[in-house]
Amino acid sequence: MDPVKVGLLGLGTVGGGTAIVLKRNAEEIARRAGRGIVIDYAANLDLSRAEELGLGNVRLTQDAFDVVNDPDIQIVVELIGGYTVARDLVLQAINNGKHVVTANKALIALHGNEIFAAAQAKGVMVAFEAAVAGGIPVIKAVREGLAANRIEWLAGIINGTSNFILTEMRDKGRSFGDVLSEAQALGYAEADPTFDVEGIDAGHKLTILSSIAFGIPLQFKQTYTEGISKITAEDVSYAAELGYRIKLLGIARRTDAGIEQRVHPTLIPQRRLIANVDGVMNAVLVKGDAVGATLYYGAGAGAEPTASAVIADLVDITRALTADPENRVPHLAFQPSQLEDTAILPIDEVETAFYLRMCALDRPGVLADVTRIMGERQISIEAFIQKEPTSGVDKVDIIMLTQRVREGNMNEAIAAIEALETICSSVTRIRVETLG
Amino acid sequence: MDPVKVGLLGLGTVGGGTAIVLKRNAEEIARRAGRGIVIDYAANLDLSRAEELGLGNVRLTQDAFDVVNDPDIQIVVELIGGYTVARDLVLQAINNGKHVVTANKALIALHGNEIFAAAQAKGVMVAFEAAVAGGIPVIKAVREGLAANRIEWLAGIINGTSNFILTEMRDKGRSFGDVLSEAQALGYAEADPTFDVEGIDAGHKLTILSSIAFGIPLQFKQTYTEGISKITAEDVSYAAELGYRIKLLGIARRTDAGIEQRVHPTLIPQRRLIANVDGVMNAVLVKGDAVGATLYYGAGAGAEPTASAVIADLVDITRALTADPENRVPHLAFQPSQLEDTAILPIDEVETAFYLRMCALDRPGVLADVTRIMGERQISIEAFIQKEPTSGVDKVDIIMLTQRVREGNMNEAIAAIEALETICSSVTRIRVETLG
Repeated sequence: MDPVKVGLLGLGTVGGGTAIVLKRNAEEIARRAGRGIVIDYAANLDLSRAEELGLGNVRLTQDAFDVVNDPDIQIVVELIGGYTVARDLVLQAINNGKHVVTANKALIALHGNEIFAAAQAKGVMVAFEAAVAGGIPVIKAVREGLAANRIEWLAGIINGTSNFILTEMRDKGRSFGDVLSEAQALGYAEADPTFDVEGIDAGHKLTILSSIAFGIPLQFKQTYTEGISKITAEDVSYAAELGYRIKLLGIARRTDAGIEQRVHPTLIPQRRLIANVDGVMNAVLVKGDAVGATLYYGAGAGAEPTASAVIADLVDITRALTADPENRVPHLAFQPSQLEDTAILPIDEVETAFYLRMCALDRPGVLADVTRIMGERQISIEAFIQKEPTSGVDKVDIIMLTQRVREGNMNEAIAAIEALETICSSVTRIRVETLG
Repeated sequence: MDPVKVGLLGLGTVGGGTAIVLKRNAEEIARRAGRGIVIDYAANLDLSRAEELGLGNVRLTQDAFDVVNDPDIQIVVELIGGYTVARDLVLQAINNGKHVVTANKALIALHGNEIFAAAQAKGVMVAFEAAVAGGIPVIKAVREGLAANRIEWLAGIINGTSNFILTEMRDKGRSFGDVLSEAQALGYAEADPTFDVEGIDAGHKLTILSSIAFGIPLQFKQTYTEGISKITAEDVSYAAELGYRIKLLGIARRTDAGIEQRVHPTLIPQRRLIANVDGVMNAVLVKGDAVGATLYYGAGAGAEPTASAVIADLVDITRALTADPENRVPHLAFQPSQLEDTAILPIDEVETAFYLRMCALDRPGVLADVTRIMGERQISIEAFIQKEPTSGVDKVDIIMLTQRVREGNMNEAIAAIEALETICSSVTRIRVETLG
């Protein structure tokens, strides 16, 4: 059987990795897929990159639309990133009847609904395993492996940069800014780190995971995102003292009121497996009603790990090329006509436990005021530490763990606490998940 | 579209779980699969069980062959276990042109080659996700999710009973026999625990994982199995002192000389994620050349976790029912014609590091004798502990960690050490894997 002809858009980190692995493991991949998979045409602004990668027999162009419009190409692999040109290229490829593989989480999170509708109309496949958690086959696990389950919730460490920073802060007692600078020097963080450290990148990935878990359309605009830039070395150390680690988690949960879809720093009991996922590694914990909790762990980024997911998608499409469109694995795990309109919960409606830290004047009655404010809003305190002055003379640090409470109530309580004259700082607030 | 009609053989733990989950999540499953999946006919010796499970509309029989020969049944789910009648039933189902789903690891490990050949000749699918690590979709991950990779090795905690026993021994300092009795009382271990604690069950599962990782035929007879029944509370405690945990691991590794395929107790550095997989939970660590290390964790047994995997297979088959046989995911990840004849290494040829424990008379020169024996066989010692007498007056316990060495050399050295007059016990030997 003739090999499948692939058009590759972008020869950057992931594009290069894809070309290298497809070539190195060509025989192994063909043994699995039943036929060869070859790059026939590639687009990159800098054509000298093709020589670096040893793409000797591959046709080359600087205009990605040449590839998308080429009649010989059966599958287009979009590895350009961004969501303006990438969207146009993907829609044009679909319009030309080509299957598409992409690693572009922003594109899928923001324009996936439009892209999948176009793909369904044309009877082509769009695959995006590489868009979430790099090389970990977590899309496949949720979409196919857990197909028997009503998914209850999932929680993921899905941004390697943030996890690297938090791990270094914990291991070495360093500050956020200090570790960020090092991560930038090591290439783990971009020059503009906003997407990574403020939870946007994790928000894109969580949006995709939530859709395939619950069978809802992609709704990035409804996803709550809060990053790690305000986490201090003290928070990390106090959390440890309480038996917790701080992780940037993406959490999607089904509740009677709607879907929770939120990214924020989170304390996790250190005995949980996922609390021990360190450095740039990713992991996603998925709770199904039948299977219970399952966890998927691996490299969430990098040239070859991401290429591993891109090529797995190429193999899936190659295997399915003669299958009837209705019987292919649907993009969002559920049939397009079966997507549900379940609401995504505003963050104020979400219930979690909280870790709170505040600075107070060392005077009688302060604690009584704070606990009265909490009590009035039905917030129970689970654990409490008062620390010797670190914030100055006659001041103390108060650290609390609360029981689960609606976030709106917690915010009211925090506002009331901050209004007390005896409280000398804003209240630091980190959500707690036991993942039990 | 009409629902797919399933024939269920066996209404025991997993059969019952499958019936319950298929019913409870019927709507969710149909949303994913594109059509309903219903149990139309079920076989069980005790028909009253069907009432317990609320199988009101299901046709029932005591003769499983009635189901296998019924013209209305499209997929047969074999949950009887064992490998005599189960083999006949599965082959008959295939011969009748029916697709098959099974959770039967022994059947696949021992008769899989014959069964898959029959299925290929008939153009039907045989799916067995539930046969390895229960609800964890690890077959799918290795077979599809990591299809881009040359798999280098995998290592799994794939027997929950053994892992429960080892975890209890560590946490509470209890003996093997003591914990085994409790596990039997709790239903985690069978009345005859041989399959679980002697590594046979893990060997069946490892045989399957090794085949799909490397594209080789199933070869249970070549799988080395050693269980945990000789592990003592002291071993567990000494291992901890050295920074290790003892786990029953199934390990498959590709080497230039052949495939290592072995199940045995193994020390793992306690900082590894897999070292922290405790109780009855399972986990499989897979190392691919592109993706690096990935880990899959979850419940390895139980009614609903196993049903989760059985039903995922039913969904896959339902989705693929109109696909061309050549383009389906092949049973062993590689096309049948592409299976390779790579040899499986005898255990003597395998290289690992070792933990050794022995009792010695407390006399000058004993240690010199032992180290001379090791040195003569090029075995380097990495760490060494001498413990105060616990074995009696004038005796000491000697514990060592070695560097990596061919197992054959180690066995020679152990024989020579045991022949020393100053050594008062046989040498306890546990392999060490850093999983780096």
